[in-house]
Amino acid sequence: MACSIERHGSGAPRSIETAPETQLIRQFFTDLGAARTDVVLGIGDDAALLRVAAGEDLVLTTDALVEGVHFLAGASARSLGHRVLAVNLSDIAAMGAIPNWALLALNLPRVDEVWLRNFASGFGELARAHAVALVGGNVSRGPLSLTVAMAGTVPSGQGLRRDRARSGDALYVSGTVGDASAWLKCGRGELTPSARAAEFLQRRFEYPTPRMALGAGLLGLASACIDVSDGLYADALRLLLASGCGARIELPQLPVSWALRDALGDRAWQQALEGGEDYELCFTAPESAHAAIAALAVRTATPIAQIGRLRDATGIELVMNKSVMQFSPLGFDHFRS
Amino acid sequence: MACSIERHGSGAPRSIETAPETQLIRQFFTDLGAARTDVVLGIGDDAALLRVAAGEDLVLTTDALVEGVHFLAGASARSLGHRVLAVNLSDIAAMGAIPNWALLALNLPRVDEVWLRNFASGFGELARAHAVALVGGNVSRGPLSLTVAMAGTVPSGQGLRRDRARSGDALYVSGTVGDASAWLKCGRGELTPSARAAEFLQRRFEYPTPRMALGAGLLGLASACIDVSDGLYADALRLLLASGCGARIELPQLPVSWALRDALGDRAWQQALEGGEDYELCFTAPESAHAAIAALAVRTATPIAQIGRLRDATGIELVMNKSVMQFSPLGFDHFRS
Repeated sequence: MACSIERHGSGAPRSIETAPETQLIRQFFTDLGAARTDVVLGIGDDAALLRVAAGEDLVLTTDALVEGVHFLAGASARSLGHRVLAVNLSDIAAMGAIPNWALLALNLPRVDEVWLRNFASGFGELARAHAVALVGGNVSRGPLSLTVAMAGTVPSGQGLRRDRARSGDALYVSGTVGDASAWLKCGRGELTPSARAAEFLQRRFEYPTPRMALGAGLLGLASACIDVSDGLYADALRLLLASGCGARIELPQLPVSWALRDALGDRAWQQALEGGEDYELCFTAPESAHAAIAALAVRTATPIAQIGRLRDATGIELVMNKSVMQFSPLGFDHFRS
Repeated sequence: MACSIERHGSGAPRSIETAPETQLIRQFFTDLGAARTDVVLGIGDDAALLRVAAGEDLVLTTDALVEGVHFLAGASARSLGHRVLAVNLSDIAAMGAIPNWALLALNLPRVDEVWLRNFASGFGELARAHAVALVGGNVSRGPLSLTVAMAGTVPSGQGLRRDRARSGDALYVSGTVGDASAWLKCGRGELTPSARAAEFLQRRFEYPTPRMALGAGLLGLASACIDVSDGLYADALRLLLASGCGARIELPQLPVSWALRDALGDRAWQQALEGGEDYELCFTAPESAHAAIAALAVRTATPIAQIGRLRDATGIELVMNKSVMQFSPLGFDHFRS
């Protein structure tokens, strides 16, 4: 793990081994994730050496959290450690892959040991839960920003893509959607749910659950899959555009949490469609896979809802009680019968 | 390639395909690097799918450039595109590996098409020169910061580490050292070399040459290797500490450019030892490999200097004309005979 805090300071390092950066990396990041036998060489060299099993494809992704964009100043460091790993794990899950190794690039305005300990705690706990080894990274001075690159593996040729859905396939989403973005609205004073609901929404935002078991279980079942990071409507549309088809979504089927309903009442499904930061999986499968998907939901203890069906006509048609609803960037502005 | 610029703006995206971020990624980053047959799925899904050949280990690294730390506001975008890739390539070279695939995470304060075009030009040119495919990434709004994660491959079990040097091995460094950091001193007004020398030093800082052919050629020859990013003294010491030995370095053997000598005269070798941002390779090899290393230097057209020899006594002893020089964080403060 390289480090460049104060790299351009005057003079040469008094001792590499006692430099604050080196100690910081040792103290907080060595052995932070899981121990894996496929890590030939982890943190501490110019790069990590890793063994990919025969018959596996490598799966690579990166995602970042930036202060002021993805979180506000003063956000919980433990939550940030969890989230920056979770958003990358979610991308791996959306490919049906198993996560193996992570790289962590931190830009830190200063060395704050309490912050680092909490960050490492959130990161490490989630990493160990999914057997992910932290194999390298970089620490720089700079405005607070966290970037993870994640590598996983999937049986060769079987990775779930977003461009293989077919007209007639069922459209599914895991968990509930809209919670995390509703919490952001609470933070801006635009929503005032009950204290219990607020606590639920905050937890959904701060500690999203990447759907690893579901993603891996969808191999051979799903025709296409995408992770819901920018909002269900936006991400489902990406999947549909990549696959060259459209979908009809039944609004009453949208999985909405009790807390979102508490906060937004009848407008909950608008938030469920528009809100980002959910890190659920949106996927498609032929009718023939339905029973297996239901069984997978039970086996992996993951809530799954069928929210609609794909069709040839492009775009997304939203239906409620047999009425087609018009969706616009300003929200649901009117009903059409 | 994900994108979160203005992700939290109000309302849902009018059209995913016409969103400025999506167009920006299409325009500047699709097909930016090399085309590779081992890329099953590149930019445009949740993650990339890549094929690792049998008998190869995966090599993973990440490095970042942050405005105000690694470069000043107004730095050449083309140089930044080159540098952020070069610093990662250099880590791959230091493992004796071949670079294959890159991920790019950009935090941008605004969308500046001219800046992006120049950045992409510098990045793309170097990527194509080394057959590196850009397979994914992330664009966020935020203070300017560039992070690359790079994946390469090396024959299983043969990756060059920094912890395998032995007492008696010769110590080598490629190219010249101290140039890049001398340019930083010019920028701060601490150095005023001739215009020709300044131009040379600037080019060394802005367009470092990752030593890919040398690194790959050192497989089976070098006992240990590290890339020189924080200064030759600091990085050589890291290698020595990892290997549990020390070294004697002959100062007159340090490879110093004509420009550095022009700028610093007799103090050039202090800069050569202390200065960072060189991205040369520092490596060790047994005496028996010397002729092969000399041949490699010629075959890869890479200058290589033998600067000393490893020994059991820890630390680095600096020798000039049979005098041992004392090195301190304040520089060379006195001679010892």
